[in-house]
Parts: sequence; C-alpha cells; structure tokens
Amino acid sequence: MSSGLPDFEVDEQVLGKQLFDCITDLFPICRSITGDGVRETLARLARVVPLTTHEVPSGTPVFDWTVPDEWNIRDAYVKNARGERVIDFRRSNLHVVNYSVPFRGRMSLEELRPHLFTLPEQPDRVPYRTSYYQRNWGFCLSQNQLDALAEGEYEVCIDSSLQPGCLTYGELTIPGGSTEEVLVSAHICHPSLANDNLSGAVIAAHAARRLQSLSLRLSYRFLFIPATIGSIAWLSANEARVPGIRYGLVLACLGDPGPLTYKRSRRSDAKIDQAAIHVLQQLGEHEVLEFSPYGYDERQFCSPGFDLPVGRLSRTPHGRFPEYHTSADNLEFIQPAQLAKSLSACLEIFEVIEKDRICLNRKPNCEPQLSKYGLYDPIGGVAESPEFRMAILWVLNLSDGRHSLLDIAERSGLRFRQIALAADALSEHGLLENVQ
Amino acid sequence: MSSGLPDFEVDEQVLGKQLFDCITDLFPICRSITGDGVRETLARLARVVPLTTHEVPSGTPVFDWTVPDEWNIRDAYVKNARGERVIDFRRSNLHVVNYSVPFRGRMSLEELRPHLFTLPEQPDRVPYRTSYYQRNWGFCLSQNQLDALAEGEYEVCIDSSLQPGCLTYGELTIPGGSTEEVLVSAHICHPSLANDNLSGAVIAAHAARRLQSLSLRLSYRFLFIPATIGSIAWLSANEARVPGIRYGLVLACLGDPGPLTYKRSRRSDAKIDQAAIHVLQQLGEHEVLEFSPYGYDERQFCSPGFDLPVGRLSRTPHGRFPEYHTSADNLEFIQPAQLAKSLSACLEIFEVIEKDRICLNRKPNCEPQLSKYGLYDPIGGVAESPEFRMAILWVLNLSDGRHSLLDIAERSGLRFRQIALAADALSEHGLLENVQ
Amino acid sequence: MSSGLPDFEVDEQVLGKQLFDCITDLFPICRSITGDGVRETLARLARVVPLTTHEVPSGTPVFDWTVPDEWNIRDAYVKNARGERVIDFRRSNLHVVNYSVPFRGRMSLEELRPHLFTLPEQPDRVPYRTSYYQRNWGFCLSQNQLDALAEGEYEVCIDSSLQPGCLTYGELTIPGGSTEEVLVSAHICHPSLANDNLSGAVIAAHAARRLQSLSLRLSYRFLFIPATIGSIAWLSANEARVPGIRYGLVLACLGDPGPLTYKRSRRSDAKIDQAAIHVLQQLGEHEVLEFSPYGYDERQFCSPGFDLPVGRLSRTPHGRFPEYHTSADNLEFIQPAQLAKSLSACLEIFEVIEKDRICLNRKPNCEPQLSKYGLYDPIGGVAESPEFRMAILWVLNLSDGRHSLLDIAERSGLRFRQIALAADALSEHGLLENVQ
Repeated sequence: MSSGLPDFEVDEQVLGKQLFDCITDLFPICRSITGDGVRETLARLARVVPLTTHEVPSGTPVFDWTVPDEWNIRDAYVKNARGERVIDFRRSNLHVVNYSVPFRGRMSLEELRPHLFTLPEQPDRVPYRTSYYQRNWGFCLSQNQLDALAEGEYEVCIDSSLQPGCLTYGELTIPGGSTEEVLVSAHICHPSLANDNLSGAVIAAHAARRLQSLSLRLSYRFLFIPATIGSIAWLSANEARVPGIRYGLVLACLGDPGPLTYKRSRRSDAKIDQAAIHVLQQLGEHEVLEFSPYGYDERQFCSPGFDLPVGRLSRTPHGRFPEYHTSADNLEFIQPAQLAKSLSACLEIFEVIEKDRICLNRKPNCEPQLSKYGLYDPIGGVAESPEFRMAILWVLNLSDGRHSLLDIAERSGLRFRQIALAADALSEHGLLENVQ
Repeated sequence: MSSGLPDFEVDEQVLGKQLFDCITDLFPICRSITGDGVRETLARLARVVPLTTHEVPSGTPVFDWTVPDEWNIRDAYVKNARGERVIDFRRSNLHVVNYSVPFRGRMSLEELRPHLFTLPEQPDRVPYRTSYYQRNWGFCLSQNQLDALAEGEYEVCIDSSLQPGCLTYGELTIPGGSTEEVLVSAHICHPSLANDNLSGAVIAAHAARRLQSLSLRLSYRFLFIPATIGSIAWLSANEARVPGIRYGLVLACLGDPGPLTYKRSRRSDAKIDQAAIHVLQQLGEHEVLEFSPYGYDERQFCSPGFDLPVGRLSRTPHGRFPEYHTSADNLEFIQPAQLAKSLSACLEIFEVIEKDRICLNRKPNCEPQLSKYGLYDPIGGVAESPEFRMAILWVLNLSDGRHSLLDIAERSGLRFRQIALAADALSEHGLLENVQ
Repeated sequence: MSSGLPDFEVDEQVLGKQLFDCITDLFPICRSITGDGVRETLARLARVVPLTTHEVPSGTPVFDWTVPDEWNIRDAYVKNARGERVIDFRRSNLHVVNYSVPFRGRMSLEELRPHLFTLPEQPDRVPYRTSYYQRNWGFCLSQNQLDALAEGEYEVCIDSSLQPGCLTYGELTIPGGSTEEVLVSAHICHPSLANDNLSGAVIAAHAARRLQSLSLRLSYRFLFIPATIGSIAWLSANEARVPGIRYGLVLACLGDPGPLTYKRSRRSDAKIDQAAIHVLQQLGEHEVLEFSPYGYDERQFCSPGFDLPVGRLSRTPHGRFPEYHTSADNLEFIQPAQLAKSLSACLEIFEVIEKDRICLNRKPNCEPQLSKYGLYDPIGGVAESPEFRMAILWVLNLSDGRHSLLDIAERSGLRFRQIALAADALSEHGLLENVQ
C-alpha cells in the first residue's frame, strides 16, 4: 500500500471502496466467540495484513472466567406442518440464538414460543441474541414473521456442536524503534452485523497494513478478538506485556452515518485521550464521551487492576442507533466514505502519538529574526500560509521543555500536523532541538 | 418512630402533617434571643425528642461579645384617645420591636412616629424588627394601619423587662460508633414566623428523633439556639469539641414553596458539601450557593478561626422571598409536603455520610464473571434494574482505594443509595472489601 | 497634576481632552523604528513627563537581531507627465512605504505598479506598509487613486536616507518603596496613525505623570520604544533588570470605540492578570484574551527565556478593526472619553497592585461585635452602604493569611477599592493586621 501521500494520509476514495469490499466479503460468515467462523474471518483478514492466529483451549482459566467450549453450527430451522422452513439459518445466521446447544424435536407453537425472540417495536427486523454462558437454544425472527406463524406442530432443528475446542483470536505486532506499545483492538465475534463490528476489524487491518509500510517510533499490537472473553484471555496470558502498553484504541462501529465519537480511557487525561480528542476536534463535528465501565473491550483494558490508557473510537455509540444488534445493521447501513474517514482519523491519531515530542527553543530570549531563516515572509513552499507562520511562533514560544508539540497544538488551536511541520522547519535551521 | 421503611427513609405524607402540626403548636409563642419564649419552645420540642436545656448567665463574655440581659414581655399596646388598642401585642407579637425596653407614656402621633416601623412597599404586612444591642423601644405595624391613625394623643405601653438573667439554648447528642461528630443547628429566636425558622427547628427535632432509632457510625449533636449570640456562646464554651466536628448543617427556611438550596461551607469542597449537593442533584430541581459570610449561624461556624465544614440547607434563601421577616411568613406560607421533603433530603444527606466509605475490588484484573454470582442477569430481586447493573460495574471499576462510594456515585451519576446497595451485594459475594 | 481626587482616580472629562490634544500634536510626525521622527515624538512627550532618551548605535547586536541603519525622510512623490504630484508624502506620510531606500527615476505605470500598494477592499483608504529588513522602496495609495492613474511616464522620488545612526527610545523610572518593578511599554514607531499607537504612548505618559505625584510601594519603569526591535534592544541591554520585573502592561490601541480588552500574560495567572481582569470586570463590558505569541511587544517580554508577567491592555485588538493600519486610523477614529476611560482603568490596575496585601483577622473566632466599633449599622460616612458592610464581613472571613485583598475582591464580587477601604477601617480598629 505504498501511496504518493504523506506518511499517515490516505486516499479516502480508494480506501472507502477497499474497506467496504472487505466487509462485504466477511459479512455472510457466522461468527461467534469461538468456532470456525472466527477462524475463517481471521484467514480472510490475513489477506489484508499478515496475522498470527492463537488458539486457547476450552477450560483454560482466565482470571475469574473459564474459556468455554467451542461452538460450531451447520444448519438450523423451524419447519411447519407442510415441511416449509419458516425460520431458516441459511437465510440469515441471526435467526439462531448464538451459542444455541444442539436440538431436534417437534412441538406446538406454544411450546416453541419461549425459544423465539423478536423486536416488537421494530417489527420487520430480526434481533441478534446470544446465550454464551447459559446453555439454551432459540431462534430470532421478526415480529411480522412471528405473527404470521399458524398454530400447529413445528419441527425444530439446531444442527450445532458445543464441545471442547479452542477460543481463536488474531494478533499482529509491528515493531517500532521503541518498545513502547500501542494496543489496537477490534472484536470479531458478531455474525452478519456490518457496523458492529466488521467495520472496526477491517479498519484495524487496513490501519495495520499502512503502518507496516512506515518507519515507526512506537511498536503496535493489533488484536482481533471475541469481545469480553477474548480480551480477558489475552490479558491473562500477557500480563507481562501490559506495562509496555502506553496507548490504546478499541475500534468499533465505525461505518455508520454518525459523527466520530471518542470515549475517554478510565484515566481520562492520558496522552491517547489528548491525541484522539485533538484529532477529532480538528476534523469537525464529533463527540467526546467520558469513560464508563460499559461498552466493548475497554471494559477489560480499563479494569482497575490494569487501568490501561485505552480509549475507544466509534461513530454512533452502540445502543444509540436503532439498527444496533438487529438485522438492519447490514451492508446498507454502512458507508464507504464514513469507513474511510474513520480510518483517516485513526491514522491521524497514530501520527500524533508518533510525532509528539518535547522540543527546546535554542534562542529563547526574544523571538529570533525569522526573516533571516526564510521563515517569516518566505515566498513559495508550505511556509506561505498564515497558519504556518503562527505555528512557527507558537512552537518557539512554548518550546520551553514543559510543553509537547501536542500541548502546543491544543493551546494554539492549530492542527498537530501544522505544528509538527513548523517544528521540523525550526529544527532544520537550528532554532529548535529535541529534548533528550 | 419505628417505621417499616428502610433506615433513612420517611413516609412523607405522615411526616408532613406531623411537622406542620408541631410548627402550628409553636407558632404563637413570643421568642427572642433570650427569655421564657425560648424556654417554652424548647420544652415543647422536647416532646418530639429529649433535649438538654442550657442557661448562660447575662454578662458572660463570649469571644468579642457579652451575653445580654434577658428580655421578657407580657403586653404592649398603643391606645388612641378613645382607649382602643390601635396596635396590640396580643394580636401579634410582631407588633413590638423585639427587645424593646419597658416604656409607658402619652404622646402625639408625631412624637410616636420615630418608634413606628412599616413596610411601605408591602402595605398590608407587619415587619419583624429587633433592637438587641441598642436600647430602644418601638412598634411594627402595616403601612395601612399607620395611614389610618388619626392625629391626636396616644397612650403607649411596653410591659417588658430587660434585666440580668440567662441566654437559653437546647442541645441533644446522639452517640454513634465513632467520636466524629455531625453538628446540626437551627435558630429558635424568631417570634411568630413560620418558615424562618420554626421550619428548621422542627425538622431538626424530627431528624434527631429518627436518628435515635438507628444504629449510627457517626455521632450527632443538635443545637437549638438563638441566632448569632447562641452559636457564639456555644462555640465559646465548647472550643475543645470543635476539632471533632467533621460535618455540619445549618437548617433554616425549609417549608416554603421554593426548591431545596444548599449553601456550601467556607471550605466549599468538604465532604458535607459533596454529600449535600449529590443528594439535591438526585432529588431534582435545586440550587447550590457559594459560601458567603452572611446568612445564619454558618457565619460563626465558618469564621476563619473555626472554618468548620458546615453548610446550610434551606429552600428559598432568606431575603429572596417577599414574606421574609414579615407577618406573611405565617402558617399559610409553609407547606406540609415541602417540610417533609426537606426532612427527607436532610436524612438522605445523613445516610450518605453514614454509609460513605472506600472499598477495594478484590478481583481487579478484568471484570469478574458476574453471572456466576447472580449479579448480571439475575431474575427477581433488586438486581433486576439496569441501574443496579451499572452500579455494580461502576463500583467494581472505581473501587481502587482512591474513590469513595460517594465519589463513585458522583462520577456515575447514579444515586448514592444505588451505589451503596451494589457495594453491599458485591461485599456479600466476596468481590469487595472495605479498606481498613 | 495634583487633583482633589483620591490617589488613583482622574477627572475623565479633563483628562480626555488633554490626551486627545496631545495625540493631535503628535499625529503629523513621520515616525519609524529609527530616526528623527522618534526623537521629536519623545521630545514632545517629555513635556508631559520627564523622559530619558537612549540612543543605540546601528549594528549593535541584540540577541538574534542587529540594530538596523537609521532611516530619515524629507520628501517623496510620484509626478505625472504634467509635473503634478499624484502621490505626495507631504499630504500623508503613509504614502511612502516606511523604511523605503532613497530612489529617483522615471518609469512607466507598468514599471511602477510593483511598488504601489493599495487596499482593494477599502478603496478609499491608504494602507500602512513597512519594509524594515528587506531593502526596497514603494508607495501606498488608495485603490481609487490608483485606478485614476493614466498610462504614461512618471517621475519617482524618495528623498530618504538609510545609513548608520541610532535606534532611539525613551525611558522613565519612578522609584517606589520597593525595588519590585512594574514595566509599562508603548510602541512609538508608527507614523500618522492615531489609535495604533499614539493612544498607548500618550496614555502611558499621563499615567506616569499621575504616578509621579503619589507615594508608591512599587517602582515603575515606562518604555517608549519602537515595536519589536525596541523591546529586543532594551531586554538585551537590561537582562540584569529582568528579575525585578514583577508586573507589566503593554499599552496599545486604547482610543477606539471598542470595549476594554485584556490579553493575559504567557503565565496566564500572574498577579497582573488577576488585577487587570478584576478591574475590567468591575468596569463593565470588556473582553479577556488568552495569551498568544502574536501582537505587540508582549511577544518579546513573554518569549520563553524571559516569560515576564506582562499582559496587554487594549480596546479592539489590532487586526480586528477595519481602520487598523490604514489612513482611517486617524484623529476621527479615536474618542477623548475612550482615551480617558483607558487611562482610568490603567491607573485602577496600578492601584490594585499597589494596595493588594495579605491581612490577618485578629479576632478570627466568630465575628467581632461590629456595632461596638461603629462598623455595623453606623450612621454617616462610607460605612453606610450595604456593599461596605459586606466588604467588612468578607475581609474578616477570608483574612486567614491565605487570601490577599485581591483574592477577597474576586471571591466576593466586590470592587477592590471597597475591599481595601474595609481593610483600612478594620485595621484602624485593631481588628486586622498586615501579615509581615
């Protein structure tokens, strides 16, 4: 993915299509927190960027939890008296309650009802339901479908298996000059739901692909994991790595039409919070949420024993769009342009944490005579803009060893990229040095 | 007052009537900063809750002040030429300037005028005036009354006494497990004025009555005192007790139709401030005032030499309602429901300071598997509500030894009661422990 | 300037006229960053208040800069073929680009055009342009003038000199009881522009004149300097004095109709910031700007090597009024009343930093009995106002050794003058003492 663009920038038109196509490819797979759907998803993501796949055996204790048995499913249906599949897994994997135990039987509609789940307030949509830790079985269908079912006997089949196996997750590390690590995590356990969270997984993979082509200061670790149990399993197996994690982002729900939304880490003023909020402010309409112990895997990364500086980048937060966890979270709900802008924002956040540093003005008494260095009213080049001239003045004024370039960007209201360019130009002329 | 309700909750319907009846009983008494009116008031309050009465002799030096002579009054009037009482203490004790020296004489209306006080802007109301430290006498009447007075000679009588005696106040202590003390103070020096401050005195007495039925962590001290000179006298005699006072509330003007109002202590971020503001926020419409060195006895408790963590709970602040210090501050101005809600709020504040504590999550790495403990999707019981589930997550996430339960309630936006219930449930399952 | 007014107050009617007349006198002089125009300006300001004039030779190194050659100009014009002066320095010194090198020649309009500067968007105004550090020459004219020029040959003359000489600036020190210094600076390098900055220079001179008549705690240093190179030259020659500077104000653009505006020092919460903002808040409509490394000589005083507590007092900030740096910044643009109010505000800021101090309540336990001292309901005198009574209570309550009188003014919302009066009255009665 070598492009003619500066390091952390992307061609949003090209990327939007690539991201959408990738999601389209992955959409039909029936994923869960374990099983072959996860393996197939990771195999296809590995075409974007090379991933390592890890298998954690069922029964492995992970903190207060235990890795569950592995679930796989081949088919599931409810047939009416005429043998017609009135509920059919082959039409949508959402029709089966995820992690349903194997079942075969015949029963009346009344007996079946406790196993049927609908959304009465959105009568044409199929809900997404799971039952990971309570052994049960069930079907999801639209309220309209349910209303059309006649009394009578039905044949029920869930051709699944739930037995010792493994929990599967993908991992990718991109080493940088420093051992300080950036953790990027996306959950990959949802079946045919597009925004939640193929959008996050696919953007993570493409962000990793771009970072692989760059010379990096920080090291990056990407995790493609089942929600909750996946992050718990990873943290349990990698406690020694935790102190090296200095920044982190959970990527989720990034393709819908809503504005970019950043949820602060538990620390609330970590460098990743400062960087992400700065980038979103510069990009325009956005929302910043305070930390809360609810949501996606930030719940685990930000548990008090770890308290990692991990925030979450989303668009409309989960639960705030009516399509959430329904059959309407499909390929029509996500937009290529929104996916591309999410990726852009993600890379710009990485750019900030990569390039942020503390510099020292080497001529701190009064302003230097900038015109001597071609930095005041220069003709041609980037230096032409008034923003660049202000960036030069801000960097000089605040490079006293106490303000990082990101601090300067924040205080000046200028985009970090502009501040970093100014710092580079001042360094070239010997007016600025990096603090050791 | 044993009720079927949880510890700090009251039946507002029942209590509203009790509070109002108690105020109705006390309303006619002519109180002042000294004298038999105070004694009678304390005697009747002692039917609600047992009080100790203290007598401080006139002439006792108390910091920069001296306890004044004791004032008592039997009768007072102004009679016209026909012998009719045109101003009559027997109709309302507000008609005499409180602390008027004894006087008998005959004079023209012109000579009398400098001793007559009205409210020209509220022409049908009688003002409340005092002259404690300047020896003087006078009458208060409505502007309409004054306008109706004919020229001619009047007979004036103030049958009062002002001579060495005592300053009287009431005190009640309720010991708890700790010697840390909560100071609750209400002024009882105003004559027939209902909101200012029979409301505060009667609510204090009923709050004490309820606390007496509970097992308490903190010790409570209730003072029923004349304003200013009473708190000064108490502080002067009890300097050694001051360091034990960790929380405090002045109760005043709590029956009018306005919203609950909390005035911060001089420290502005004491635990009592945090607790009171949290409770008022949860209860709905309210107002928070910054500290100022004006108002009721918080002026003395918050003088710089003491700087006690004492705030003030009121409804409409004094001086902001037109009925303030007039004959319109009567039994029609106060409402049983408002009185009961004030008492509820007061008790809920005590509940917060009683139950607040710092806990430690015993499984701080990742979330515990709450469903194992029946704390996630439990069926039945308090745990059913989504608020309770969020409270569980917040308590686990922030119980890191640095956040008290009140801090967690504040940050989560959940009611302290909900947070405390969640902490109790987590402790029962061994997931939480109290910090030593 | 002995007046019947209290120390730091002025008769705005009298002063407004004096300030305006002084500006009118100085307006026609052609000033620049060096040359006889500066000398003449300083000579006339010395009639208001005695100034010392300093001369810094061309070629003197001052930090990263070098004092430039001295520029003087006698005449300049562009004549058309009929010998008429179509652009004429004698009509306005703005017509010549300031620091234009000597030039004589004949050329076509096309050849002349690159040397002509207009404001197309304000077609009847002449812009103000300089070229201090790039040797060049040019003329400024209105767009309408330019549009009226016929094709043809023109005679061009700039009868200037640019050769080794001196940079001239004025300085005045007013010693106070302490060596702590207040720096007041105004730039005097602009030719016939009234608001920017004859307003600042003339207000500085009159403020100095008033301070000279007073007994002062602080020492004051007034600088009348060419912008940028002047402050750099002063700082370069006076590095040893810098640590003594504890407060500072740059005065600029103080006569226009806009509201008073204070720009914070780089430190943002220095005592001068607190004092200036308090005064402006008390005076009514105003604006407070955060520090930015752009503007006038605060750029140099607040460079990171010095980081002086120097803010800027202006009305409409430079660049935000369309008259800025045009021929419309003339005597009609400034108003005597605005000038006088600016001077008043400046002096009131000095009053605050002069009188601010930390006091200690000598009777900190409870309130003193103020009526004993005639400080509660006194009859007659300043003590009559409710503001004064509140000021007394605030000073007593917060004089705990941790709050200065300015802190108390801020927290109470009362004017510093009222707080200082209350502190004086309490000190007189032995209730307050100054902290050593």
